[in-house]
Amino acid sequence: MFHPTPASVPPPNARLVLRQPPGLPVNFHPLNPLQFVLRAAEIYPDKIALTRGDNSGSPVAYSYAVWCQRIQNLAYALKQHGVKRGDIVAVIAPNTTLIADAHHGVLAAQAVACPINTRLKPSDVQYILEHSGASIILVDHEYRHLLPPHLKVPVIVSNDSGRPDDPYEKFLAKGREFSHERGWGGLDSETDETAPAMLCYTSGTTGRPKGVVTTLRGSYLAAVANAYESRIHSDSTYLWILPMFHAAGWTFPWAITFAFGSQITLRTVEFPLIWKHFLNSGVTHYCGAPTVQIGILNDPGARTLPRPISAIIAGSAPTASLIGSLEEKGIQPIHVYGLTETYGPFTRNYIQPSWARMSLQDRSKLMARQGHAFATAQNVRVVQLQKEGEVELVDVPRDGQTVGEIVTRGNIVMKEYFRDPEATAKAFSGGSFHTGDLAVQFPGGEVAIVDRQKDLIISGGENASSLAIEQELASHPDVMEVAVVARGHVKWGERPHAFVVLKAQSVGKWKGRHGQFGDDLKRHAKARLPGFACPEWVTVVDELPKNGTGKVLKTDLRKVVAKL
Amino acid sequence: MFHPTPASVPPPNARLVLRQPPGLPVNFHPLNPLQFVLRAAEIYPDKIALTRGDNSGSPVAYSYAVWCQRIQNLAYALKQHGVKRGDIVAVIAPNTTLIADAHHGVLAAQAVACPINTRLKPSDVQYILEHSGASIILVDHEYRHLLPPHLKVPVIVSNDSGRPDDPYEKFLAKGREFSHERGWGGLDSETDETAPAMLCYTSGTTGRPKGVVTTLRGSYLAAVANAYESRIHSDSTYLWILPMFHAAGWTFPWAITFAFGSQITLRTVEFPLIWKHFLNSGVTHYCGAPTVQIGILNDPGARTLPRPISAIIAGSAPTASLIGSLEEKGIQPIHVYGLTETYGPFTRNYIQPSWARMSLQDRSKLMARQGHAFATAQNVRVVQLQKEGEVELVDVPRDGQTVGEIVTRGNIVMKEYFRDPEATAKAFSGGSFHTGDLAVQFPGGEVAIVDRQKDLIISGGENASSLAIEQELASHPDVMEVAVVARGHVKWGERPHAFVVLKAQSVGKWKGRHGQFGDDLKRHAKARLPGFACPEWVTVVDELPKNGTGKVLKTDLRKVVAKL
Repeated sequence: MFHPTPASVPPPNARLVLRQPPGLPVNFHPLNPLQFVLRAAEIYPDKIALTRGDNSGSPVAYSYAVWCQRIQNLAYALKQHGVKRGDIVAVIAPNTTLIADAHHGVLAAQAVACPINTRLKPSDVQYILEHSGASIILVDHEYRHLLPPHLKVPVIVSNDSGRPDDPYEKFLAKGREFSHERGWGGLDSETDETAPAMLCYTSGTTGRPKGVVTTLRGSYLAAVANAYESRIHSDSTYLWILPMFHAAGWTFPWAITFAFGSQITLRTVEFPLIWKHFLNSGVTHYCGAPTVQIGILNDPGARTLPRPISAIIAGSAPTASLIGSLEEKGIQPIHVYGLTETYGPFTRNYIQPSWARMSLQDRSKLMARQGHAFATAQNVRVVQLQKEGEVELVDVPRDGQTVGEIVTRGNIVMKEYFRDPEATAKAFSGGSFHTGDLAVQFPGGEVAIVDRQKDLIISGGENASSLAIEQELASHPDVMEVAVVARGHVKWGERPHAFVVLKAQSVGKWKGRHGQFGDDLKRHAKARLPGFACPEWVTVVDELPKNGTGKVLKTDLRKVVAKL
Repeated sequence: MFHPTPASVPPPNARLVLRQPPGLPVNFHPLNPLQFVLRAAEIYPDKIALTRGDNSGSPVAYSYAVWCQRIQNLAYALKQHGVKRGDIVAVIAPNTTLIADAHHGVLAAQAVACPINTRLKPSDVQYILEHSGASIILVDHEYRHLLPPHLKVPVIVSNDSGRPDDPYEKFLAKGREFSHERGWGGLDSETDETAPAMLCYTSGTTGRPKGVVTTLRGSYLAAVANAYESRIHSDSTYLWILPMFHAAGWTFPWAITFAFGSQITLRTVEFPLIWKHFLNSGVTHYCGAPTVQIGILNDPGARTLPRPISAIIAGSAPTASLIGSLEEKGIQPIHVYGLTETYGPFTRNYIQPSWARMSLQDRSKLMARQGHAFATAQNVRVVQLQKEGEVELVDVPRDGQTVGEIVTRGNIVMKEYFRDPEATAKAFSGGSFHTGDLAVQFPGGEVAIVDRQKDLIISGGENASSLAIEQELASHPDVMEVAVVARGHVKWGERPHAFVVLKAQSVGKWKGRHGQFGDDLKRHAKARLPGFACPEWVTVVDELPKNGTGKVLKTDLRKVVAKL
């Protein structure tokens, strides 16, 4: 039986109100997602807020009252270590209570949380720590090796045990002590709603990571939108599969709390464990990229769910076969699109009533579009690609054909790139945030990504979208996953090269006959794609190279083809 | 078959974006509930937005695309009539498309809508028109008699027909013409999110009505909260029973639109018609005070619903018998509390899991509490009653016994009382908005109203809550509705006088024996209430006097007892 540490237990009659800034108007309060956990602990103190869902180690479960106290302790502990308003607090951890705490506790100290991708190389971690100027580091015990030697700032290690002898628990207990039981009333409410909330370095497939600064106002509005759009409520249970270090978990750490929902953390993405929770823990929601969804569906433990679960899907468009397989299992896909710079989702594919009468194949094509502006997002535009020196943004025709770049603006666009005014100015050129994603806009206003600007394949002067090719190749019955990149070609300039992972049950069928499989796949492609978009080469691989957030690293594949 | 007027039909490829203010930061957009209808028309152009649900007259139904065009036309028509930014547009109408349009179209003209209670006396209407300085009046044909003679401002009459020859439709058509098809891009987006949105005069049970000014930011946040808390989504249908002129319909005109839901308007509260819609129109939500709920339940057409409907209840606390009767019919009560000054709901009774095991009687007592801060509301406090000159607000102990006044602050508190800085300063005294409602706060933080400050009955030095007495009297099996007021008493100073409406099936039973019924009710009271709270007098009446929003007019009852 798990017991929270003594320092985690709130005093009787705890008042869950921050010190109010003097002079604040009666009718104005700065939007701040920190308010959510205070309200949850007030209204549902005994409800389970946070559970560790891992197999190993002692179980850990915190009620909202206890979790809220731990968040308060974290704020005081940070202050005790000299963290001041606006300071950066680095967090290196997989999905654990530590990083869940940090999303609230760092804000409670009026500091800025900087979650770092645990799959980065030590040199990248060092770069982020230096560039951010982090004044303290909270690190999970398994990731200490990522830290550079001779650090000049305090490092707090969590063994993720929840036990009193855990160094992180000692850190929290000292924070509680340092508070002298002043409670929430001893912590200041932030007066500026546009103050920074998080500093999230993009995992980036090329170049140095860029630090995306978000605001309290944006985080509040995006989190409310995510709770509303996903229909997360007090009877919901969210399973953490998406890493929280990725774009602040698309604001779900706050969205679930706003909703008074329960969340379950998993240190690693283990499909059998995910299915255990799907079937036994009352899970109602999770987020994940299509590659993760494929892994979930291909797990031997996969079965039809007794109650439906909503899967929020982003990262790339779900294919028809993925949508069909999810629905078959009782998983309802919600297709959203966004970037770290937009707090995660800023568009959603809104299902239209008329689609109900369509075949899965037709419906899936419409469901693969990135859709319309999300709740609390502003209008989403597709504009002509800017030439050097051009400033005015011109919308492309809504014809579903003319390719342009997706831009947006409004409350759920980042504050800036940290210490990089040049990159910020470039991203905000013409008064809108530039996503770098190439798309078309349909007459109904919905957008559909055709490719990342750098992933286009220019074959014989034609623009071939690697995404569109991948969508078609994925419909081959033996293909589990596929990635297509441009490869130099003497005659056509570039031609598509496909890298394919076969389905488990198809591996045997094509064993020793990958060449024949390639021919079969090319025939499949020819029936569905224009000639310039058909793959010239097919390579069967065991797995695709991916970055920390499950995105395929096309840069790595390009390196492979460059050597061919 | 109904056809929208030609002017209501949007042009092909209409762009649903307002003219963007120059210099607006890329990452900031002023919150404004006008955004909701633009987004709805973009994402679900063909979905039914607004239907007239009355029996009489031609049916009227507008899709989001058409409704959005009508809203745009209204904005241009107002501008054509000289309405400028910040001007007041008076609206005198029951629940019709006219007043639904006004909640969006007036904002689109950057003006301020002032909906006027149709049940007011002409002298009160005249006062409001003069005090507000309304520069134009939109009036439903049935309420022209409320207008003072010799008006110096334009009056636009709606026959609520939706036909091209309707003067309101002509007004809209001229607006369309005046736009020269510049569309939404010819209308300016408001840059100040704290600009006034609505001017709602409180219906007031005493004295002159006060004009409550709300903001765009507050309206946006309150509407999103109402959609979220009531779980209104694109598959929801809302039936208008609550008058839209009451506190801007508690922001539901925007909440339903944010959700892409459908709304049905009813000019009058007719219970058979309400049941027709409950049973045949896919209604999922409605709002109403307990008195309206009682009327719904007592209609001969009442039956168990095939699908549950959510009833948002405010105005006074629902009794155990009301909650039980609603649940029996498949109506799920959501108990909220608020005032015009708080955009409608700012607290909610949050159902606790543990209540499921309780008896209806016990559960209802907990459900009658006003509860905790609503989503997007700030903390709700109960503070000691201020004495003359006191400024500091001191919370009462959370003991469920000590009576104080409910105060709150934050984004869903009004901007001010219109042209009344003195009343505003008084209401905002000590840095919080004073509700005038007396309440206790329980250890769990939830508040429960004991009475309006002026409705307390002081009997032999004891404070008797008229609400608490009413709750107990309402549990008598023959009582449909009851109101209790103080009546002068030689010995005790004041004693309670109860006015009772009998249930339809009990009227015969007590015919000619009201004195005996009074004795029976007093016996009932003695078993449940302290002696000082038992009614000294009981009067059976056919109906209780009520104001325009269904609130019992205790001032009228006090006048009655003053003459006894």
